[in-house]
Amino acid sequence: MSKNSEKSALHETGSSPGSKNINPNSAERIRAIRKKRASEEDLTSQLLKGNKTALGRAITMVESNQPAHKEKAQALIEGALSHANKSIRIGITGVPGVGKSTFIESFGSYLIKQGKKVAVLAVDPTSSLSRGSILGDKTRMENLVREEHAFIRPSPSGESLGGVARKTRESIVLCEAAGFDVILIETVGVGQSETTVHSMTDFFLLLKLAGAGDELQGIKRGIIEMADAIVINKADGDNQKAAREAKLEFNRALQLYPSKESGWKPEVALSSALYNSGIAEVWEMISNFQKLVFKNGHFNANRHQQNKFWLLQTINEHLKNNFYQHPQIKEALAEQLEAIGNNKTTAFSAAIYLLNKYRELQKI
Amino acid sequence: MSKNSEKSALHETGSSPGSKNINPNSAERIRAIRKKRASEEDLTSQLLKGNKTALGRAITMVESNQPAHKEKAQALIEGALSHANKSIRIGITGVPGVGKSTFIESFGSYLIKQGKKVAVLAVDPTSSLSRGSILGDKTRMENLVREEHAFIRPSPSGESLGGVARKTRESIVLCEAAGFDVILIETVGVGQSETTVHSMTDFFLLLKLAGAGDELQGIKRGIIEMADAIVINKADGDNQKAAREAKLEFNRALQLYPSKESGWKPEVALSSALYNSGIAEVWEMISNFQKLVFKNGHFNANRHQQNKFWLLQTINEHLKNNFYQHPQIKEALAEQLEAIGNNKTTAFSAAIYLLNKYRELQKI
Repeated sequence: MSKNSEKSALHETGSSPGSKNINPNSAERIRAIRKKRASEEDLTSQLLKGNKTALGRAITMVESNQPAHKEKAQALIEGALSHANKSIRIGITGVPGVGKSTFIESFGSYLIKQGKKVAVLAVDPTSSLSRGSILGDKTRMENLVREEHAFIRPSPSGESLGGVARKTRESIVLCEAAGFDVILIETVGVGQSETTVHSMTDFFLLLKLAGAGDELQGIKRGIIEMADAIVINKADGDNQKAAREAKLEFNRALQLYPSKESGWKPEVALSSALYNSGIAEVWEMISNFQKLVFKNGHFNANRHQQNKFWLLQTINEHLKNNFYQHPQIKEALAEQLEAIGNNKTTAFSAAIYLLNKYRELQKI
Repeated sequence: MSKNSEKSALHETGSSPGSKNINPNSAERIRAIRKKRASEEDLTSQLLKGNKTALGRAITMVESNQPAHKEKAQALIEGALSHANKSIRIGITGVPGVGKSTFIESFGSYLIKQGKKVAVLAVDPTSSLSRGSILGDKTRMENLVREEHAFIRPSPSGESLGGVARKTRESIVLCEAAGFDVILIETVGVGQSETTVHSMTDFFLLLKLAGAGDELQGIKRGIIEMADAIVINKADGDNQKAAREAKLEFNRALQLYPSKESGWKPEVALSSALYNSGIAEVWEMISNFQKLVFKNGHFNANRHQQNKFWLLQTINEHLKNNFYQHPQIKEALAEQLEAIGNNKTTAFSAAIYLLNKYRELQKI
């Protein structure tokens, strides 16, 4: 009996000769399962048609911590996967006040005029505390939010950056399956969040302001190293001279970094999101990047590398959680720490003891 | 029957009535075990008497990757533990050319004149490639190496910084058990090696040179944050003015860092290791630090914290190695990576699949 015919047998439950043997609760459960399956299939098909409400609901599933939702979310993602991967994913970072929202508003609106569908996501590990500090205030993007071809979603909240990252990565897949071909992922430099966004995007854009000559101070070296473009924002009015100087300075600084695996030479651009200047140039730059990395194979190689990174990252996190959250290990760990404190054992011996104990516990 | 009398029974094996039941190979093995135990006990007792040859041999055991040696090493360390922990552990870092060896020679000789016993160890994760770039050339410390109360040992080699770190930490315990009361641990800023040395020492000293006004360039921010002292070396001759300026500049820079858990305010000092100037002042500074952290409890709290760090670090490394080196997991991982590449699954689903598979394999 094939799986399908089993399914159709269930379908006919009400009139089948065996129906009397099925208690009413089971029948109800079966109907509920059927309904759930139908609604999942419906949600997936709505999503693939580009329905934004369906996309929003799907992302809510991905973000939920309820086991039932997690299962649905996995089914949704699996249905979406083969339709995804056709976008460019752009990471955007910069300190608060640099004008990220205004830039995204301006850049996103421009892309929509070019016929693109633009999704804006955020990675903000602090959002569980501050309830969505990034993109929380959608009114900051008042034009973009009204566009039919724009989808804006604040950062998922999560216990850890790892949790937030996983949810955002899965949301990217859903957005792509819904036909969004430019995915903008915004982050503010909190802890490791920039590295996290860098490891889920194709192009990484650092927004800067022209300052008083000390452009390079206070920037984490690692961020510049990751950037494919530095865009000096608010290059308007009285700021223009300082912005041009900053451009020179950043160009000089970029020379000092080793060349990128992608073969791309990072560029410095000026923009005024407020006056919509420099926006087309930024997109042209990204298009040039895209041509280069499609041609030299880096685009796919990099996405593969990123997937591998996320796979290993997820495994490592789980391996640790499984160990440290095991009740008997928790207890034994406390004992070993005490023994170390009393010079009865070393950290190394204690570790080996705990690992052996854990191995035994796994066998039960 | 007590353990001891069992031992003495073995001792009489040759003439015991049951001896005919023991085959010659077993008897030989028993004799070998007895000999081994005796030699271990002997090595431990020689070590505790401060015998430098025994200390050297003990460290060789710790550094060895042979299973038999590993076992001996653990026995040695366990015998040494209760005699250790009575030293001050000082980490010393600085870029090549800053004069680390000359400083240690000068500082170490001074300490010996003060009645101290000084051990010098090194953490150099590159040493397995370059065969001991740090301290490899003992002639650089030609006076110290001849002192009866000095023990100098180059960096252990190791596949990973983790391996080098474990070996060095265990060597510290052995040195302390041998009565060395000042342990100097040298490192050069390769990768994470400074963080590693910081996490195994009580006091962290950064050696610097006076430069041409750009003192703060090229220094990793994290290193300054870790330093308890910045010692500007080669503050002699024509360098004196520049050194004093550098001192001012570093003092200003240190103000910007958050205050330390230890309650210690990092200091900047000048020294000329070549002319033996400033050396006594550095030791006085460290003695003041020691008084403070003994009094406020940070000394013990910090060592406890470090032990905990190393315990967790060791566990995490092993959890990962056990997983990734499992032959069936290796195979399944490659398959999952391919499936991800073909959009058949996500990194997250693949991770969960592999973790479940691993759990099943553990039960066998």
